[in-house]
Amino acid sequence: MCKYEEKTIKSTPIFKGRVIDVSVDDVQLPNGETSIRELVKHQGAVAIIAVTPDQRFLMVEQFRKPLEKQLIEVPAGKLESGEAPDLCALRELEEETGFTTNHLELVTSFYTTPGFCDELIYLYFTDQLVPLEEKKALDEDEFVDLHTMTMEELDQAIVDRRIHDLKTMYAVQLLKLRGY
Amino acid sequence: MCKYEEKTIKSTPIFKGRVIDVSVDDVQLPNGETSIRELVKHQGAVAIIAVTPDQRFLMVEQFRKPLEKQLIEVPAGKLESGEAPDLCALRELEEETGFTTNHLELVTSFYTTPGFCDELIYLYFTDQLVPLEEKKALDEDEFVDLHTMTMEELDQAIVDRRIHDLKTMYAVQLLKLRGY
Repeated sequence: MCKYEEKTIKSTPIFKGRVIDVSVDDVQLPNGETSIRELVKHQGAVAIIAVTPDQRFLMVEQFRKPLEKQLIEVPAGKLESGEAPDLCALRELEEETGFTTNHLELVTSFYTTPGFCDELIYLYFTDQLVPLEEKKALDEDEFVDLHTMTMEELDQAIVDRRIHDLKTMYAVQLLKLRGY
Repeated sequence: MCKYEEKTIKSTPIFKGRVIDVSVDDVQLPNGETSIRELVKHQGAVAIIAVTPDQRFLMVEQFRKPLEKQLIEVPAGKLESGEAPDLCALRELEEETGFTTNHLELVTSFYTTPGFCDELIYLYFTDQLVPLEEKKALDEDEFVDLHTMTMEELDQAIVDRRIHDLKTMYAVQLLKLRGY
């Protein structure tokens, strides 16, 4: 029971998609008045900070349709229905970078946009990378370039806004706080 | 012209709301195949790191309907149509905290969920707070508690997941990197 809980009076489904579902909920506010909340449901996702033995960082560059531009990001991907986050992280690491690992550390998790969406991202870290003998296939509609970047290159990419998403900027700060 | 650009073949509007618009786009992939992209449009937002003279941090606690729980976050809010981000930041600071400032530094900006949404957040910083003589009204459907927290309390709230959103966790990292 939260102090400012908003009780659902009615939930109206708007859209069911592959990535998101959308509903509009009528809610009762803490003061007894009513309002509406636009809600996006998302399966959740993982992201992986992957560090090579010579202290470079594996990053992927891909086109992001909502922004109509390419961004450089930490390897990441959506959870499939019922998939365990650590298995998803290993799968995405293998598919997007061609490396695997026996040692994935769960660093933390975070909500990306709590105001309208329930997406939760699990962030993993590994500095124990092993190249795959055989490269895994990406999803059919996925096209990414792999970059192996130094900390100086990450900093410059943030200035240039080739890195411009919050999870990757968080990952870079985390690496600095860990002494990289 | 991006290497992996996805050209829009057709855009189908699904929903137009107060906070988000949703569409489903048919796109042509770089390999000539087609796919669909579920896209959420958002006006963008601001967030403010506000530091008191005794090195405490102003935070707001509010109920987040998508998560069905209360979170502690940096003061933040949506851009109104055509609103300049710095004016929005000042407005949200005044409404949510009861403080104002003559000195707002734009620290950076970031996309929160580039995979499906174009929301861009502008992050501001101020350590020059002046209490307002008269408190400003919140939005009609907004209920928040103000917290004035130490760095130790922020760290504990992250452990306890009362702070669990990415922009606030990024802000705490940024403060540490600035020596707080």
